[in-house]
Amino acid sequence: MKEVRLIGLETIPIVEEGDDVGELICQAAEREGVGLQDGDVVVVSHIIVSRAEGRVVNLADVEPSEFAKNIARELGKDPRLVEVVLRESRAIVRMGDGHLICRTKHGFVCANAGVDRSNVPGEDRVALLPEDPDLSARRIRERIRQLTGKDVAVIISDTHGRPLRRGTINVAIGVSGLEPIWDRRGDVDLFGYVLRVTQVAVADELASAAELLMGQASEGVPVVIIRGYGYRPSERASARELVRPREEDLFM
Amino acid sequence: MKEVRLIGLETIPIVEEGDDVGELICQAAEREGVGLQDGDVVVVSHIIVSRAEGRVVNLADVEPSEFAKNIARELGKDPRLVEVVLRESRAIVRMGDGHLICRTKHGFVCANAGVDRSNVPGEDRVALLPEDPDLSARRIRERIRQLTGKDVAVIISDTHGRPLRRGTINVAIGVSGLEPIWDRRGDVDLFGYVLRVTQVAVADELASAAELLMGQASEGVPVVIIRGYGYRPSERASARELVRPREEDLFM
Repeated sequence: MKEVRLIGLETIPIVEEGDDVGELICQAAEREGVGLQDGDVVVVSHIIVSRAEGRVVNLADVEPSEFAKNIARELGKDPRLVEVVLRESRAIVRMGDGHLICRTKHGFVCANAGVDRSNVPGEDRVALLPEDPDLSARRIRERIRQLTGKDVAVIISDTHGRPLRRGTINVAIGVSGLEPIWDRRGDVDLFGYVLRVTQVAVADELASAAELLMGQASEGVPVVIIRGYGYRPSERASARELVRPREEDLFM
Repeated sequence: MKEVRLIGLETIPIVEEGDDVGELICQAAEREGVGLQDGDVVVVSHIIVSRAEGRVVNLADVEPSEFAKNIARELGKDPRLVEVVLRESRAIVRMGDGHLICRTKHGFVCANAGVDRSNVPGEDRVALLPEDPDLSARRIRERIRQLTGKDVAVIISDTHGRPLRRGTINVAIGVSGLEPIWDRRGDVDLFGYVLRVTQVAVADELASAAELLMGQASEGVPVVIIRGYGYRPSERASARELVRPREEDLFM
């Protein structure tokens, strides 16, 4: 029997701009009796990182462009929201049927460029993705090391729709301390066959595992500690490794 | 603190045609001291189901068609393997660069129509996906209930590549006993905002969580018990709900 534990922290307070997310995680882990250990993977919902980093926009302050107004009319959306989405986008991948699928400045393809209306206090406020989610992850990781002496890996997660399959899943948009992709090419299987093409997106699988707890308590679990998973450490990891360059995307 | 446990079974024997996978799972869970409990989710790698169901083809027995030979030449593949892939496919979605992306008879879009060379004993043998993975899941679930009296949910998993993001993740290709998609439309978030579009593909997230253990021990962990996750029960569930109809696929 091999075991991995998913431990959802339930006592992280409502995060506001300027809060120290790393410290809040350490305090909650201590308070809930689980602490942090070397080799833990700490998965953090981007929404609390965005709020701590002040990546929240009040729609009342937004002046939509003419183009934003056109698209908003077409899609039945709030033109101010569309304006914010366009500012966060490098390209529109597809639009229609009330949806706006964008490529973000980071390179991720997702609905509304990751701009999120839920889990933000205030009627007219929306959260953007962190400016540099890898950097956000690194800061949280370093803060945890500073406060506890423990070497953990950190993943910033977001919920994405995807082509081909229905329903959203949680994926990694920022990582620090672990290889997001486990390159198994050349490994041997149970019967000695050499694997030829297997690269496993472990950071996305860790993010998805964490959502099993994040999603359950009306968003009251923004941080999940994954204990017992033997990740491959890396000091230069980036979640951008998970973005498939358009030219090698056989599916599209 | 809320916890979900991922428990990987390490003593499932090498599965052969005709083996009773449900019974092997019960025996291993007992032997490893974890047993099975009401509400467990049992994730089973399709490869042992395929082997138990005799879905293994000896390439020496396969006569490739002229078209299979053409494609094999184009892609640098074994023409007998291509022939098997074509027999399992309802459509070729894309080909090139040594890859053959197909829509399987079940509707899943994946490389080589899910035909797998690894983890099959014998040089020239390949495994196909189960004929009806939902039915395979249901049989395992019923067998577990019969042997232990416990009501569990069962997911048959496979490893898929995907558009937009690099690396493979584990997804559900067969389910029994749980809703594969958690429809949260109308739920309220932490600040009272009504969620409008969130449907979470929990069966895929459970499959991905399980792979954190399956992938680690050179494929020696074909079954993972997920304990403590409050799934939504369903007697009519099908993994086909996770297949996005082409006409509603905004990404493609």
